[in-house]
Amino acid sequence: MNQPVTPAGELMADYHAAWLPWEAFSAIGSRRSAIHGEGLLADTVRREVEDACARFGGATGADEDAELVLALYSWSALPAAAEKLRNSVAEDPGDEGFVLARQDGVTVLLAGGPAGLLYGFFHLVRLGEAAFGADHPPRTHRPVMRRRMLDHWDNVAVHDVMGQVERGYAGGSIFWSDGALTKDPARVRAYGRLLAASGANAVSVNNVNVHAVEARLLTDRLDDVASVADELRPYGIGVYLSVNFASPIMLGGLPSADPLDPAVQDWWARTTARVHRRIPDFGGYVVKADSEGQAGPFAYGRSHAEGANMLAAALAPYGGVVYWRAFVYNHRQDWRDRSTDRARAAYDHFAPLDGQFADAVILQVKYGPIDFQPREPVSPVLAAMPNTRLAVEVQVTQEYTGQQRHVCYLAPLWREVLGFRPWGASGATVADVAAGTGPGGSPGGGGGGLVAVSNVGDDRFWTGHPLAQANLYAFGRLAWDPSLDPSAILDEWIDLTFTRGADGVPDQLRHTLHAIMDDSWRTYEHYTAPLGVGFMVNPGDHYGPSIDGYEYTQWGTYHFADRNGIGVDRTQATGTGFTAQYPHPWSSTYESPHDCPDELLIFFHHVPYTHILHTGATVIQHIYDTHFAATQRVHEIRSQWQKIHNVGLVDSDLHARVAERLNEQARSAEEWRDQINSYFLRKSGISDALGRRIY
Amino acid sequence: MNQPVTPAGELMADYHAAWLPWEAFSAIGSRRSAIHGEGLLADTVRREVEDACARFGGATGADEDAELVLALYSWSALPAAAEKLRNSVAEDPGDEGFVLARQDGVTVLLAGGPAGLLYGFFHLVRLGEAAFGADHPPRTHRPVMRRRMLDHWDNVAVHDVMGQVERGYAGGSIFWSDGALTKDPARVRAYGRLLAASGANAVSVNNVNVHAVEARLLTDRLDDVASVADELRPYGIGVYLSVNFASPIMLGGLPSADPLDPAVQDWWARTTARVHRRIPDFGGYVVKADSEGQAGPFAYGRSHAEGANMLAAALAPYGGVVYWRAFVYNHRQDWRDRSTDRARAAYDHFAPLDGQFADAVILQVKYGPIDFQPREPVSPVLAAMPNTRLAVEVQVTQEYTGQQRHVCYLAPLWREVLGFRPWGASGATVADVAAGTGPGGSPGGGGGGLVAVSNVGDDRFWTGHPLAQANLYAFGRLAWDPSLDPSAILDEWIDLTFTRGADGVPDQLRHTLHAIMDDSWRTYEHYTAPLGVGFMVNPGDHYGPSIDGYEYTQWGTYHFADRNGIGVDRTQATGTGFTAQYPHPWSSTYESPHDCPDELLIFFHHVPYTHILHTGATVIQHIYDTHFAATQRVHEIRSQWQKIHNVGLVDSDLHARVAERLNEQARSAEEWRDQINSYFLRKSGISDALGRRIY
Repeated sequence: MNQPVTPAGELMADYHAAWLPWEAFSAIGSRRSAIHGEGLLADTVRREVEDACARFGGATGADEDAELVLALYSWSALPAAAEKLRNSVAEDPGDEGFVLARQDGVTVLLAGGPAGLLYGFFHLVRLGEAAFGADHPPRTHRPVMRRRMLDHWDNVAVHDVMGQVERGYAGGSIFWSDGALTKDPARVRAYGRLLAASGANAVSVNNVNVHAVEARLLTDRLDDVASVADELRPYGIGVYLSVNFASPIMLGGLPSADPLDPAVQDWWARTTARVHRRIPDFGGYVVKADSEGQAGPFAYGRSHAEGANMLAAALAPYGGVVYWRAFVYNHRQDWRDRSTDRARAAYDHFAPLDGQFADAVILQVKYGPIDFQPREPVSPVLAAMPNTRLAVEVQVTQEYTGQQRHVCYLAPLWREVLGFRPWGASGATVADVAAGTGPGGSPGGGGGGLVAVSNVGDDRFWTGHPLAQANLYAFGRLAWDPSLDPSAILDEWIDLTFTRGADGVPDQLRHTLHAIMDDSWRTYEHYTAPLGVGFMVNPGDHYGPSIDGYEYTQWGTYHFADRNGIGVDRTQATGTGFTAQYPHPWSSTYESPHDCPDELLIFFHHVPYTHILHTGATVIQHIYDTHFAATQRVHEIRSQWQKIHNVGLVDSDLHARVAERLNEQARSAEEWRDQINSYFLRKSGISDALGRRIY
Repeated sequence: MNQPVTPAGELMADYHAAWLPWEAFSAIGSRRSAIHGEGLLADTVRREVEDACARFGGATGADEDAELVLALYSWSALPAAAEKLRNSVAEDPGDEGFVLARQDGVTVLLAGGPAGLLYGFFHLVRLGEAAFGADHPPRTHRPVMRRRMLDHWDNVAVHDVMGQVERGYAGGSIFWSDGALTKDPARVRAYGRLLAASGANAVSVNNVNVHAVEARLLTDRLDDVASVADELRPYGIGVYLSVNFASPIMLGGLPSADPLDPAVQDWWARTTARVHRRIPDFGGYVVKADSEGQAGPFAYGRSHAEGANMLAAALAPYGGVVYWRAFVYNHRQDWRDRSTDRARAAYDHFAPLDGQFADAVILQVKYGPIDFQPREPVSPVLAAMPNTRLAVEVQVTQEYTGQQRHVCYLAPLWREVLGFRPWGASGATVADVAAGTGPGGSPGGGGGGLVAVSNVGDDRFWTGHPLAQANLYAFGRLAWDPSLDPSAILDEWIDLTFTRGADGVPDQLRHTLHAIMDDSWRTYEHYTAPLGVGFMVNPGDHYGPSIDGYEYTQWGTYHFADRNGIGVDRTQATGTGFTAQYPHPWSSTYESPHDCPDELLIFFHHVPYTHILHTGATVIQHIYDTHFAATQRVHEIRSQWQKIHNVGLVDSDLHARVAERLNEQARSAEEWRDQINSYFLRKSGISDALGRRIY
């Protein structure tokens, strides 16, 4: 566990530096610093500061005339400035927290533990010169969520249909290549460093659909997992493994995977003990059970709680947890059957089990009731299980939001979800639930935190679309502090990524990036499926429009458009009753087509095309207006990006990559506009009030 | 070329005997026969008769008291009965023809050549005991088409998307396996024998989409083709090769494939000479050029005639021909553009070239203008090129007709196409055109004949669905004689396939098979896309319904359904003008929505749902009625098949295979019915007059 730390400079060799270019370290690197702490993460910080100083002329080591002091709160022999700060703050800021002050021209950071030292260091990188400006009193920083994890849907062996990375749009996996461990461990290290700088602290290293080869990571290929863990450890990133619930059969040769079978329990206990011997700081398991064909406890007549608790029992002795996904629904639905509602499924399956899950179980709940659509209501499961540790799951990978060919800055979406108050304006937020500070308190000793499906691959720009890096960054930041403003996070990301050192970022570039990204989620929403109904994507790859693509399928994702109207009636009064899964006041708000927010109207209601929205427009005119306007908007941002190039504000290779993607976005947006508009004109027979061209 | 003939018994080892079970040979095999002829095919016949006699107690060799004499017309020393027949017929029946008579209790068959001997032999097999009944005067049999070919869309290397056999529904290829020549040459031999017994006389051995590995069959993998030819030769089956037009570049290292470049011409001449040295009876090439991404002469500014003629020049010295496919259209069409009409494409490309093709070119024309749909008008190209050898191409493989999971006996479809009279009731038929006896006579010394994409694979039943064997059989029979009645062909097939020797076929089985198969094409048509509009299938695999699956794509296959009506306006007056590609009277018939046959109405016209058909029903009610009735019909035939089992009339493994497919057909037909009916109810808002359930 104490292998030498790779010099940070070596981490930026063949790929884009993302939000950690050398220039971002100029403020720290040009000063004299003192560092007091020990352990692997302290060593990492020390090496980071040394590398920065080597490049920018600063120095480390001397307490005398240090302008920056980084120290553990508990360090015995602190320099005077740090001692003074410690005396002025009431309590240790906690393992991952830190206190920052500037007093008498010295910037002092006191961390509760080595992890806090690391996060504090990257906080200083973000601040840049601002960390060394006017004096200011102590400020304490702590993560709101203890658990901030990226799930990688990476296959070890290339999958026939899904390839190396399921729903991956940035090349191959950074962990695995053609059935083997990556040959580029430095890239894994660099990824861990980027994650640490964003605030994330965990990854799961393989796809939740665990195929035959991947299942073996748990046993005879455990060394591969250990190698990944070794690379990530210096940046405080814990490693988790997706496991197949049928592993006792697949790997152990047992006749059953029944969670109540003592032989099965014993197999998991022994197997997990072996994992922890090999990887002492192993995080735990991620499980997709009884979902879309994956094995699970149902085969043995057992509940999800019984299944999850068995794994929790194996992990708990080592402090591990199991993330148990709540993505369970009938994926063999009959489209003729309008009473079955996929939106209801997670609640129907899991809400009755509240209180039955062991402390070491985290129930991982997608933010919406369907599947990562650009617009969904918040999942009612998040308000239904006060006695269960709940994690909120989002997608950084843009499966349904343009697949990293479209610009779609997702922080505003996540911020809305995290800020949603299921119990009304004076109640707790979803972020409170995930942090373990919502109703019911903190079962299991803390909330489940925030989990995202990663958008990273072995692409030179990490995320395919260079601007999609901002989503990865914003995820970590929102997991750390869900109250952050998305636009402010974007500024942080711009400042780091495009900094020219002391000169900062040119105004024109900043303004252009805001113009392109701030509203890009809403723009995407507006040229795709209207008013919250979702899907309308091509089956299988989920890219591009196919309005009826899922309409007559088994997948439970319908829009029910006919010549008169569109939408899914999910009311209690006349529909599937899904609205009743929400607490007051949302159950009533969603129940009423007049109170329901416009953007979710046809998610909850089947309405005529002539229904009047709160905006005053009819549904059909809204469809036309948003599709014309949003497509126009894409053309505008493409022009703005071109102007940036003309004045040379970004590297030409990055510019070219974004420009190429914007061309595809423009083409695709036009295709969405024309197919949606033609489809609804053909069905409704109602012309555009403005007489624009509809084919 | 004179390798020993495999005993026929060995050909029926591991797979179903299809229409050549031992029992079918009992009439010949129980008699005394004399055979007079020499050469490979005569040897084949001799061996066939000997094998039959060995099983059923007859004998060959003695002219004395032979009840069956098989002899070449030109044979010098004929036995008396044959000599008498030769004296009574005016002329040699031609290379593939034969004269059959029964006189004084002796059945005599005189063949114009060894091939005639072979076809005559299988004719006797078909006749069975009837060949040995009452005396009858000489009857001459000759094939109407000289060219009767099965195209195999078999890949040598397994293709990522299309697999071993493109559009294959019967397992792997019988020629190729995982990149190599099959290890089961006996199966190839057995296939040739079945083809010969049906009347076919040629195969092309690889996919018209010629990928990298397959291209090399022409050069360094030519031995593989020769091996296939060796197996098929004893049954008179000639071998053709699909070639890539870019072969001079891919294989020859030339910088160009320009057909007017002397170096290119020389490469093809040398390469073709080498092919003929290795395979002296090699048939020629099949080419898909400038179509769906395949290379072709357009890249060099050359016409299809210039491209085809170059290959013809290389082949002509050896008597070879090139089949040049007329399947050329814009497969990057914009769905927004209603003026481009894929139906027009083949005519627009090829009709102007009439007279420019060399004699050794056969233009291979799909029977309809789109793509093997269950219902299309006959392609107008077939009436537009009197100075060109035209072959009619059909699909025995059921790409669009149920993929050998649905029963769909296709002989009635092909019979309609072949009997169609493009110039009106007193004009020539499509069969005349293909036979070279239509307007313009016989350019190049004979018509192009009939070509089909094979439905055969390495499946135990050859064709996946055992009843799909009848399609392969019927293809050969209709190519031999396009005037045959499909129901009579079906009887032949039933008699051969299900015979119990002297006892024949039980009546109940015969009646049931007719009930299941006679109208199965029409039934399939009725539960799928209505009134000739076609497609509405799932994109990619083309199985099952997706009404809008191709509606907003680049493929040129649209239905333009809106809330008022449906169909493609292909009239001259207001549409794409496609109707003008037909000669009188069909140009006028199709132009008028009142004269146009119901079954093609919305192929040619966009009409309101309330349009009244000749049947008196509205379009919308017709849709509902046909979909309910045809699905009901599938349930009925499934019950009938079950009854056959209950009384043990067919082998249980064959019964089980058919039963399994009928279950899938019933499920799929219901899906078609419900999706089509729901789609059009939602669009039209018009309820079913009979109040049946529409979801």
